[in-house]
Order: sequence, then C-alpha cells, then structure tokens
Amino acid sequence: MSRLIDTTHDPNLHSWVESANCKNTDFPIQNLPFGVFQLSDSAELPRIGVAIGDQILDLFLCLQTGLLQELPEHLQAACGKSHLNPLMELGSGASLMLRRHLSQLLQWNERSPEAQQMLVPMSHAKLLLPASIGNYTDFYASIFHATNVGKLFRPDNPLLPNYKHIPIAYHGRASSIIPSDRAIARPKGQRKSPEALTPSFEATQMLDYELEVGFFVGVGNELGQPIPIDTAEEHIFGLCLVNDWSARDIQAWEYQPLGPFLAKSFATTVSPWVVTLEALAPFRTPAFKRAPDDPLVLSYLSSPADTTMGGVDIAVEALVRSLQMREAGIEPFRLSRGSFKDMYWTIAQMLTHHASNGCNLHSGDLLASGTVSGTAIGSQGCLLEITQRGANPVELPTGEMRSFLLNDDEVILRGYCEKPGFARIGFGECRGAILPE
Amino acid sequence: MSRLIDTTHDPNLHSWVESANCKNTDFPIQNLPFGVFQLSDSAELPRIGVAIGDQILDLFLCLQTGLLQELPEHLQAACGKSHLNPLMELGSGASLMLRRHLSQLLQWNERSPEAQQMLVPMSHAKLLLPASIGNYTDFYASIFHATNVGKLFRPDNPLLPNYKHIPIAYHGRASSIIPSDRAIARPKGQRKSPEALTPSFEATQMLDYELEVGFFVGVGNELGQPIPIDTAEEHIFGLCLVNDWSARDIQAWEYQPLGPFLAKSFATTVSPWVVTLEALAPFRTPAFKRAPDDPLVLSYLSSPADTTMGGVDIAVEALVRSLQMREAGIEPFRLSRGSFKDMYWTIAQMLTHHASNGCNLHSGDLLASGTVSGTAIGSQGCLLEITQRGANPVELPTGEMRSFLLNDDEVILRGYCEKPGFARIGFGECRGAILPE
Repeated sequence: MSRLIDTTHDPNLHSWVESANCKNTDFPIQNLPFGVFQLSDSAELPRIGVAIGDQILDLFLCLQTGLLQELPEHLQAACGKSHLNPLMELGSGASLMLRRHLSQLLQWNERSPEAQQMLVPMSHAKLLLPASIGNYTDFYASIFHATNVGKLFRPDNPLLPNYKHIPIAYHGRASSIIPSDRAIARPKGQRKSPEALTPSFEATQMLDYELEVGFFVGVGNELGQPIPIDTAEEHIFGLCLVNDWSARDIQAWEYQPLGPFLAKSFATTVSPWVVTLEALAPFRTPAFKRAPDDPLVLSYLSSPADTTMGGVDIAVEALVRSLQMREAGIEPFRLSRGSFKDMYWTIAQMLTHHASNGCNLHSGDLLASGTVSGTAIGSQGCLLEITQRGANPVELPTGEMRSFLLNDDEVILRGYCEKPGFARIGFGECRGAILPE
Repeated sequence: MSRLIDTTHDPNLHSWVESANCKNTDFPIQNLPFGVFQLSDSAELPRIGVAIGDQILDLFLCLQTGLLQELPEHLQAACGKSHLNPLMELGSGASLMLRRHLSQLLQWNERSPEAQQMLVPMSHAKLLLPASIGNYTDFYASIFHATNVGKLFRPDNPLLPNYKHIPIAYHGRASSIIPSDRAIARPKGQRKSPEALTPSFEATQMLDYELEVGFFVGVGNELGQPIPIDTAEEHIFGLCLVNDWSARDIQAWEYQPLGPFLAKSFATTVSPWVVTLEALAPFRTPAFKRAPDDPLVLSYLSSPADTTMGGVDIAVEALVRSLQMREAGIEPFRLSRGSFKDMYWTIAQMLTHHASNGCNLHSGDLLASGTVSGTAIGSQGCLLEITQRGANPVELPTGEMRSFLLNDDEVILRGYCEKPGFARIGFGECRGAILPE
C-alpha cells in the first residue's frame, strides 16, 4: 500500500543546487515537495514549483523549455497549471514518474545550464495555497489530545465511548483557509464565562493555535463509492502542516450540540509545500499500538499493511515569537514538540472512514489530523492543553507570560522526518501572526 | 432592508406563457425564479433559465438574440454563464433590474414571437444545481425542532443553554450536494444500538429526510470583514428547498463531541429553482415572537427592520411515495406541513452570525435553515420527530408502515407562499428517491 523506497531516496544523491546539500535543509533532493508560487513583483498567474534547498524549481518554465518533454502529455499539462489539483488527480503513478524525473534533473551529474535558469530564490517568491481546496475536514486523531481536551470540557467524561471505534471528525470551512505568512485578525464572537448570566459578543480572549498535519486527496471517488482501506493511500497525494486557529471561549459556548463552528472558521493556515507520500516512504511506521483492552478496529478500517506501515514518523513543533521577542532579536520559542506517529488513527483510516458512507472526495480536498499531542511533557500541540485552559501560563524568554495568544504574536509550525541512513525530509514552516488591534 | 413590493408583484399581470396564468402554478409571472438546466438530449453547456408556468425561459438564447440588450453588459454576461454565481455576485440591484426586464418580456402585452422561441418545456429539461456551491452551512434555527430532537438525544437536557442566544450551525459537506431527482444510495456507517457492546458497520437502518429552506449568498464578504445585521439581506440572493438527508443511527453514535459528520455527508438535495428575495417581498413577516422571559438578542444580531420584517411566510411540506404507492398510482402522502415563519432565527441573523467572526462567504455558498418544524400536530419536518425515533410509525395510504425511509421510497419537498391580494409564489419540488438495494 505505501510507496516504496527507491533510488530517489539515496542519501548520497547530491544536487547542483548547492543549498539543497546542506545537512539541515528541509528540502534536499530526496524531498522534492510541490507548491504554488508567484514572483513577489509579478502579476503573472501562479505557477507550480518544487522546493530544492533555498530555491524553487519553476515547473512552468521547465515545461516551456522542454525539460519535461519525456513525460506523458497529461502529466506535462498538469505541471503547467496554477494549482496542484490536476497533478494530484493523476494519482501516485504520475507523482512517482514526475519525482524520478525531477530527481534526475536536479542531480549533480545532470547539471544543466538550462535547468539552472528555471530556479527562483524562495526569498523572492510569494508562496500561495498549494491547491484549490474544495472541502476541508478536520479529524481528532490524537487520543492524547482528545483526552486532554475532554478533561477540560467534560471533567467527568473526558474520552467519549465512540473515540476508539470511530475516527471522529467535522467538516471545516474551506473558504477561510489561507496560505502561510498571512496575518489573521483576532475574531469576535459570543463567549460566556461560567460566572456570567448571559453571553457577550466581543473579541476572543482565548485565541489558540492547533498543531496539525494535513493531507491532500489525490484521486477522488464518486459519490456513493467508498474507498477500501487497502487502497486508501493511493488516494493521498501528500502531507503538509496545518494551523487550525481556534477561539476557545467561542468554542466552549457554541459547540453543543453540532460541534465547532465560528470558533474555527475565521482562519486555517496551511504550509506552502506538500511533501509527497513518495518522499515519506522511508519514514513509515506501524500504526498506533493499541492497549490490549482497546476494542478491535472494525474491519472496514483495518488492513495488515496499514497496521504495519500506516503511521508516519514526522516530528512536529510549534513555536511562538512575541513582538517583544522580535524587537529584541530573540528566536522563536518552542512551545511543543510531538510526533505524528502517535496518532490513534492513520491517514488511510481517516480517508477510508470519510468515504465509508459514499461521501465523494475530490482532488485537492484537505483532510487534517487534529492537534498532534503526545504523552511526554512538552508534546501537547495547543495552548489549551499546555496551559490547562490558561491556568498555567507559559513563560517566554522575555519573561512575558502566555495563557493564550496575544496580538502581534507569531506562531510557527515546523515538521521534519529524520532517520539514520536517510536524508532529512522537512515540511518547511507554517507561519501566521495575529494582527495588532 | 427587505426588498420592496413593486409592479412586478401586481397580481393582475398575465403572461403570454399560458401555463403561467393557472391559479395553482408555482411559477406565475410574479415569481421568476432562476435555475440552471440542460436539454435532456444535449451535450451543450448548462444554461441559466427562468421558470415560467411549465416552461423555462432560456436566458442564454435571450442573450444571443439581443432580448437582454437593454441591460448593463456585466448583467448580460452573467446571464450567459453555466451557473448562477456570477449573477448572484452582482447584488440585489442587478437582480431587481433583471427581474423587471424579464417581467416586461413575459407580460401579455409584450408578447413577442422572438421570446416565444426562447422557451423550453420544463419536462424536456434536466434541472441541475443552480450554483457552484463552494461552502455549505446548515443551521438549526427551529426551536421546535431543536427541542423535539433534544428530547430524544438528551431527555434530561433537550434545549441547550446556548440555543436562544446563538444561531447554532455546523459546516456541511459541499461536495455531496446533488440536484433534485437524483436518487441516493442508502449509506453504510458505524451504528451502535444501546444494548450492543460494540458498534457495527452496516447500512443505516434509520434513514431520514430533513425538510429545510436554504438560501444562497449573493455578494460575499472579505475574510475578516463581518456583515452587519442591517445590511445582511443585501448579501442574500434567494431561497430554495433543501433535503438534508440524515442517517440517525450513524448520527447518534458519531456526533459527540464534534457534531454530525458522515450521518449527513452522503447526500444533500437542493431544489432546482432559486426564488429571489425580490419575489418574496409580499410574504415577509415579523421575526419569531419570543416569549417574555426569553433572553434579549445580542445587539449584533438585532435590528428593528429584521424584527419587523425578517421572517418569510413559506408553507413547506414533505411528502413520501413508496414503490407500492407508485405502482398503485397513489399520489405522494403528506408527512408534514409547517411554515418557515416559525423559525427562531431569521435568515439575516443566520448570515450575520456566520460572518461575525470574519468568516468569508462567497457568492453561491449555501446556508440552510435546519429542519422546519412547528408546534402543531403534523408540522414536524423529519421522521425522527414524527415517529419519535421510530416508536410511533406512520401509516401510508397502502397500509405500509414507516419508522424511517425504506429503499425505493421517494421524498418530495414542496414550498409556496400564498396571501390574499398576491399571486402564489412556489418553490417547485425537491425530490429524491432511495435506490433499491
């Protein structure tokens, strides 16, 4: 089911893009994630690019100059579009073919003066949303997050009886998904403190981030046609980082009985680079190891391959940088670090469950994991958990305290895979700041 | 705030389309709802049409033959598209101008041989989704429905404390919205009976419909820019009927804590004709009359105009027809009849609340009211309420009993406005059958 490790993962591959050979780059030649960019000063249509070191390989230019001409025509055409949906739609065979071709093109021994002219410095580019996201679904796949949050909202009943049977999720708002580096306004909404008799409408006082991993649908399914667990990953193009901004006071007041609504729909930030499942092949792990007394997974969500290899070991981090820190030149402060391998449900299980009622998924649809939290101290992926709903504020390097986010705070999510014998595969950053009042 | 009554509502207007002058037509010349159609045998692009009696006025043909040439160019261009979004985007001024022009064109005294050739018999057309629906949001705006359902799911706690303060809603799935007359497959999903120890994955045994009124966003708003209640209706293009199909057993098991997900996302049926707010002007009513001890509405959701005229008096009905009834030639059996004026929240309040956190609404987005239920016997808009979760099955004219829908059952929603001194304004039908096994 998973993609295979092949020569494109060889840690000895070097690129003629020198920055791609640095030990700590997120984007070595073994990664080759896809994104959509525009030159900062350009009015031209957005183009598809591939991150390589601190550069972007411009696939539109590659196409125009014939550097992709060995590829099938439909694959070439998809590389010339303004978002990744047509490429995603072609499936994993096409992704792999393109990956192999780009790996060749960027290898040291293939250095070509033409290809060098197809590079755009990442610092000169504006990175956009990688796909036209028709529908967005947010899961709740970390049992540790679900338990921690459950304790705060329902002390007597933290983990609901359905949790271990069903990959819980809700439909999110697609229109308010924004690219990294776009600042967000602190939302207003109804909130009601326990001591107040009635709610008030005002700016949220509990603005939070959620550190999540997202994945994009590749090949979709027709309405009424479920996706079997055995072939689920063939419908997944790649992964990214997602910050599911949340207003906790609005959420607490509105979420019953139909779930989160305006507490989430003011903004969701997505990282610019989509790391393909091909690139992640070396970092697959077993699915979550359930406790002996955990219920058996229902058969529509169970496959031996998914149990053995359904996880992905991605280290994920959330950092914050206040205005005072920026002004003092202090680096972002890490709030948490967890791993995506700790999720109770795999990406294949989430996708299969989503389509199990016949719901149609389209290329470019975004599914997100929910907050990635672990059991270790410092592995909780949102301030709600870290500060226990504000009861235990975090101290920043400047001595400032944070129960929740303040205006001008910037949140930075990072993700990367590391394993002996393989190149580091990074996700880049997912950034967003809160606008001043 | 509301649209005004003008000469287009004159009950004495007659059309040269004779079927539009029948007393019981849904589509007299005073209505002029917009939809999108394709000739049944055609491979051509879908076209925008206006329902008039049993005919459709083909706006693409009208445009091509110059019958719209008095209109501004951008309005003409919007009439030539394959869905209503560009027309919706132009706002209520454009809608009104087009309505007046079409009213003239279709009036008896303006009979023109050209315009007659722009008609397509509705029976020859395939009616499609009226808009490209980017995002779909489902409210819960009937306090009677919320109370009835609350009693079944939470006997001790039927109406939650937030209900009278906040127009409760959840994000729905946009991809599985389908046009009227498309059959749906009975979905599978996880369900767990109270006596079972573990859930099972199988076809739903509690398939239900929900009788709802939907409304389409006209002019959208930018992310971060709320929509004040005073101008909310300027952002609403028109209304339709919505069947929010629901699998109650799946819903009961999955909905906590994040709300309904797969219980709803297998299909949502939308009626083909969008009745504009202009057409509905004569049928506006005061907003729901709250009880003296009900809490005051927060000011962001309150305006004198909305209190006075925010309701819409639309009679809505749900009917069912079993296979046995169809074979015996028995007419559909009415399960419920309610009125949209009984909703606790107005369409302006729903829209303003939705955008109050800065969430961006786009032209063509669909907002639905939630099930329309009243207090009278026979005014409950879904089987869950009517049969008390199956405890009191309904008897059909054939003697068949229904707790929930069986395969081959067809559900038909109807809506219409009637008032002395005005022509009847109908919504047509929203139909969908359950496929055989």
